[in-house]
Amino acid sequence: MPSLVDRDVLFPAEPSVRSLARALYETVAGLPIVSPHGHTDPRWYALDEPFPDPTQLLIVPDHYIFRMLFSQGIALEDLGVPRLDGTPVEKDGRRIWRLFAENFYLFRGTPTRLWMDYVLSELFGVEEPLSAATADRSYDEISERLARPDYRPRALFERFNIEVIATTDGALDDLAWHQKIRESGWKGQVVTAYRPDAVVDPDFEGFSKNLDRLGEITGEDTGSWQGYLAAHRKRRAFFKSFGATSSDHGHPSAATENLSASEAAALFDRVRTGRADAAERSRFRGQMLTEMAKMSLDDGLVLQIHPGSWRNHSPEMMARFGRDKGFDIPTRTDYVAALKPMLDAVGLERDLTVILFTLDESTYSRELAPLAGVYPALRLGPAWWFYDSPEGMRRFRELTTETAGFYNTVGFNDDTRAFPSIPARHDIARRVDCGFLARLVSEHQLREDEAFELAKELAYTLAKKAYRL
Amino acid sequence: MPSLVDRDVLFPAEPSVRSLARALYETVAGLPIVSPHGHTDPRWYALDEPFPDPTQLLIVPDHYIFRMLFSQGIALEDLGVPRLDGTPVEKDGRRIWRLFAENFYLFRGTPTRLWMDYVLSELFGVEEPLSAATADRSYDEISERLARPDYRPRALFERFNIEVIATTDGALDDLAWHQKIRESGWKGQVVTAYRPDAVVDPDFEGFSKNLDRLGEITGEDTGSWQGYLAAHRKRRAFFKSFGATSSDHGHPSAATENLSASEAAALFDRVRTGRADAAERSRFRGQMLTEMAKMSLDDGLVLQIHPGSWRNHSPEMMARFGRDKGFDIPTRTDYVAALKPMLDAVGLERDLTVILFTLDESTYSRELAPLAGVYPALRLGPAWWFYDSPEGMRRFRELTTETAGFYNTVGFNDDTRAFPSIPARHDIARRVDCGFLARLVSEHQLREDEAFELAKELAYTLAKKAYRL
Amino acid sequence: MPSLVDRDVLFPAEPSVRSLARALYETVAGLPIVSPHGHTDPRWYALDEPFPDPTQLLIVPDHYIFRMLFSQGIALEDLGVPRLDGTPVEKDGRRIWRLFAENFYLFRGTPTRLWMDYVLSELFGVEEPLSAATADRSYDEISERLARPDYRPRALFERFNIEVIATTDGALDDLAWHQKIRESGWKGQVVTAYRPDAVVDPDFEGFSKNLDRLGEITGEDTGSWQGYLAAHRKRRAFFKSFGATSSDHGHPSAATENLSASEAAALFDRVRTGRADAAERSRFRGQMLTEMAKMSLDDGLVLQIHPGSWRNHSPEMMARFGRDKGFDIPTRTDYVAALKPMLDAVGLERDLTVILFTLDESTYSRELAPLAGVYPALRLGPAWWFYDSPEGMRRFRELTTETAGFYNTVGFNDDTRAFPSIPARHDIARRVDCGFLARLVSEHQLREDEAFELAKELAYTLAKKAYRL
Repeated sequence: MPSLVDRDVLFPAEPSVRSLARALYETVAGLPIVSPHGHTDPRWYALDEPFPDPTQLLIVPDHYIFRMLFSQGIALEDLGVPRLDGTPVEKDGRRIWRLFAENFYLFRGTPTRLWMDYVLSELFGVEEPLSAATADRSYDEISERLARPDYRPRALFERFNIEVIATTDGALDDLAWHQKIRESGWKGQVVTAYRPDAVVDPDFEGFSKNLDRLGEITGEDTGSWQGYLAAHRKRRAFFKSFGATSSDHGHPSAATENLSASEAAALFDRVRTGRADAAERSRFRGQMLTEMAKMSLDDGLVLQIHPGSWRNHSPEMMARFGRDKGFDIPTRTDYVAALKPMLDAVGLERDLTVILFTLDESTYSRELAPLAGVYPALRLGPAWWFYDSPEGMRRFRELTTETAGFYNTVGFNDDTRAFPSIPARHDIARRVDCGFLARLVSEHQLREDEAFELAKELAYTLAKKAYRL
Repeated sequence: MPSLVDRDVLFPAEPSVRSLARALYETVAGLPIVSPHGHTDPRWYALDEPFPDPTQLLIVPDHYIFRMLFSQGIALEDLGVPRLDGTPVEKDGRRIWRLFAENFYLFRGTPTRLWMDYVLSELFGVEEPLSAATADRSYDEISERLARPDYRPRALFERFNIEVIATTDGALDDLAWHQKIRESGWKGQVVTAYRPDAVVDPDFEGFSKNLDRLGEITGEDTGSWQGYLAAHRKRRAFFKSFGATSSDHGHPSAATENLSASEAAALFDRVRTGRADAAERSRFRGQMLTEMAKMSLDDGLVLQIHPGSWRNHSPEMMARFGRDKGFDIPTRTDYVAALKPMLDAVGLERDLTVILFTLDESTYSRELAPLAGVYPALRLGPAWWFYDSPEGMRRFRELTTETAGFYNTVGFNDDTRAFPSIPARHDIARRVDCGFLARLVSEHQLREDEAFELAKELAYTLAKKAYRL
Repeated sequence: MPSLVDRDVLFPAEPSVRSLARALYETVAGLPIVSPHGHTDPRWYALDEPFPDPTQLLIVPDHYIFRMLFSQGIALEDLGVPRLDGTPVEKDGRRIWRLFAENFYLFRGTPTRLWMDYVLSELFGVEEPLSAATADRSYDEISERLARPDYRPRALFERFNIEVIATTDGALDDLAWHQKIRESGWKGQVVTAYRPDAVVDPDFEGFSKNLDRLGEITGEDTGSWQGYLAAHRKRRAFFKSFGATSSDHGHPSAATENLSASEAAALFDRVRTGRADAAERSRFRGQMLTEMAKMSLDDGLVLQIHPGSWRNHSPEMMARFGRDKGFDIPTRTDYVAALKPMLDAVGLERDLTVILFTLDESTYSRELAPLAGVYPALRLGPAWWFYDSPEGMRRFRELTTETAGFYNTVGFNDDTRAFPSIPARHDIARRVDCGFLARLVSEHQLREDEAFELAKELAYTLAKKAYRL
């Protein structure tokens, strides 16, 4: 069967390097997928219902896709993205698909193009490049497959060879879908991760009510600092009981604090009663990273920091469509000063794992690799978000390896809610890493036997180890 | 004829990639030049007089050349760069040329070296590498050609296959040379662009007098905010009548503002009467970017922002030689916070085009591509100034394409006053882009047919479209 | 003899580029080593005693090695790194060596791996890759060689073909070891460099006492600004008498000042009497860079600035083990504003050489190359510290050459206290530069004859010229 994805995709062009990259890749291509951080919906695995039509599955929820189309003048309403005020938007999946197909050329050179070709070709058997001319045929082919039992979530999970996948759930979540998965007797390993932003970030919508709710759920007094911390501890334990091995924190910056207990309690009072100014709110977020790290020392959860996104940059789009509509923009991020308070507190702990991500590539070689290359508690998360792409991953390796080595990195995260694209994303990461290793061997910086060992570490082992899966 | 410029210059070394790069290039090498932003002198096209001697044409006005020579200890006086105080400087073109030739090795690895080899070889038929030994011969060859009628500006314009070129003229300019070009009946398409820094930036020399003059020219009361805006509108219309499709703004930062009409009027009063402090002057510049964007919505001019240069970094050199003597140094530039006020006002407009440039490459992937990849009003200008070079252009594509795609970029700008180098600059851009595309195809990220389509877009179509030419 | 280091190590994979890189390299591989900036101990050359066991020579003093091992959970005590409080640490060299060998895989992809393979293989004749299995054999082989007379410092100096090496000595040093080298009649050229941080930086431990001592040594009144400056002048002259051609300054930032004599004197008073706040102490450091530059104009010493390291980031590790334990972390560094006061004072001087280093790669193309590409006093130091690595050096050339050219750079610095690795470090730099030049030739940006000339300049000539050796 012809494929939209060449068997040598992403391997360097020079024949001897390509040949080695291919050989390395062949040893890892079939390894199970370990997906330690992502945003798939546990409901899918719980209910195992068929996915809806191609458009609802592949376009409407994918901010990579609609942000690019929007940037070129296509209204989100025409792409079926729902409006908060209920104004009707396009509902006809086929029409949206056609609009997407006509404009698919806009994605040339982007990872979305690669992911989509993989999904069309490997998953749905589409053999023709997507375009206005082929839109209807591919729509029909995908629709037909989606109706089949072997295209239901659990079947795909198994077909994708997923060994374990983590969802990301808010601290207030009852994990009912996770409960249901357990009860179902299905053997797929779906674990949760503790994402407490809504009860940690005073700027989060409904923060105060969220804390009330946290108190109700846990039976702790979230009006007091000690009660609030106890509530977190209980929720972490609850999440752990559903397989969580990590917490995750999406902060505007990497700022941390290391306040005394009394200072922290006083700060909590101001935050809790809505009297904290912006600097205090930032300080509170920073203090909570350190608190979470300390809890991690007790309960073993790995702590992930995803800093530096200016969320919802356009207030008008936020008002019209809500969060996560492609208007999250990276900002310059400091780590060396920002992390120091937390590192002074717990950075030397060998039993703690803090995984750092960035949207500011200038920090790879200047800050992140030097920090992770010495503090035992630190590890580097893979190329993230806009950098989850061939060039982005290549730069990640080029800019971090010489100082932090490979073993202070944690393998790949797909970090996606686009379930069908998960194999594509892992495959791309494996290919890029194999290409990088092949270059090192070709330049005699590494022996072949080491490259084969590393290929497996990067594709599989490091993720399991770092995330304690 | 042997050439100083190899037919494969700038193509990647790997034979299969090179071969495809060459094939792509062959389809765009002959396309007309669209030069939507530059600094050639309209007077040349108006008068069509012979260019002066080689040195006055190629060395004395080229800050790339004299800054490098100066950095290695050669006095600007010895290179014929005039002093503001009238102190005599070297006038002998041949002596200056020899000095340049002796030191031409300093430019190895720089774009100046490439541009000069193109000009010597392709334009003036010089076959020997420039050096002390060959200086006189090349000086004679160039001099001889410059005296010929087919080396006059209009003849070169035609020989260069320039479809359209934009000059950049100050808001107070009477565009008399443009008028003269029109009246001459010559068919070369030379358009202007509106560059109002001198009447927008309170720190510009003579700002207050410039505003008086703006009032005289337009018959508007530039003592009032409304009159001042009206004067801009009139000048923009006047520039449009001479073909302008864009305005251009060279600000120290990308700061914008979105003040209410009354705040803006009050700020204007302080600025107009010289009472504004540095922060207010900066705010005024920022407000004017938003005002210009709003005017663009009415009159369709494309708005270009060229921020981030610390102009005239050395006060001593500024005092001795004046502006534009190679002492403009890039600075760290923020876009995400800086542009937000303007983007809140007009960033979602599909009919507006704002083209962003940068001298801070760390913003390519972190800020510029994410912004241009979602805001419909934004496009990315090509690699600019110090980055108008093979490595610079390569990095531009590598760092922006995955997030912004190709179609949120605007083709190439030569941005030069060095007229003879224009074909070289466009040729280099075409070669680098074809090399980049060839690599993507070789790595199976793009199909060949797409690469051929993109090669033409990048070389020709996108510039016409973005600049509405 | 098989070698751990391939003859083609670090050359690009494409055969024609590799072949040219090799040809270029062959012309420079045998050139003498010029090491104008480093930290070897003059005592070695003075006493010419055998080096101690493998571990004390190769592991205990190398922060690249123990920082990586520490980052993966290995205690510094187990690596023999001494504690300040005298707590016993591992003393058994063989046990430490085994621990290192078992974990040598952690260094894959790092320059430490390359340096170590060179040292093991080229210097000690070890033929097997280092691992737990081979640890004892290599320990024995190295031990055996270290006992031989031809492995003493002077013999190695000669075997390494070192033409000249600079040590870095504090301003208060009596240079007795340098004196002893002279008296010994040995012909090896070992020069000193003037490193006055301890008497320039008010935040240095014992600053006030250091100034007292400086007064005693020089017979100047270091309680007065003029006496303090005179004391520096005397020490510089003394260092010059031991071959110094440079001074070196390790500041937290690149900040400089250009105060009037009376302002500077008043600032000195506050600093000298311990009344200066943090901003004043920073200003004092900045003023001293400008003062040193002015002294350089008189005495011809080259001024090196090594800014931007946050020293001893972990206070706990500082308290336990002291300085230089791998906890120096790079920070974002500004040059354009920071250097302006000094450049306004002396930046246009052709007889001054100020060599700039950075740990912030984002400044290469944005700030450093544009500054060095115009100010006659400025030159760019090579890729430094964490960037003294194959990728780091490649990026240095890619990001600086197009704007600053090759001739505003100063060749290679090994900057190391790891004496046995010096040939490896220079060899790697030569190979990376030859690879870069070969690529430029293969892309026809440079002629072959130029590349051969440049290969020698980069490997040898530029360092001698820039450092006036």
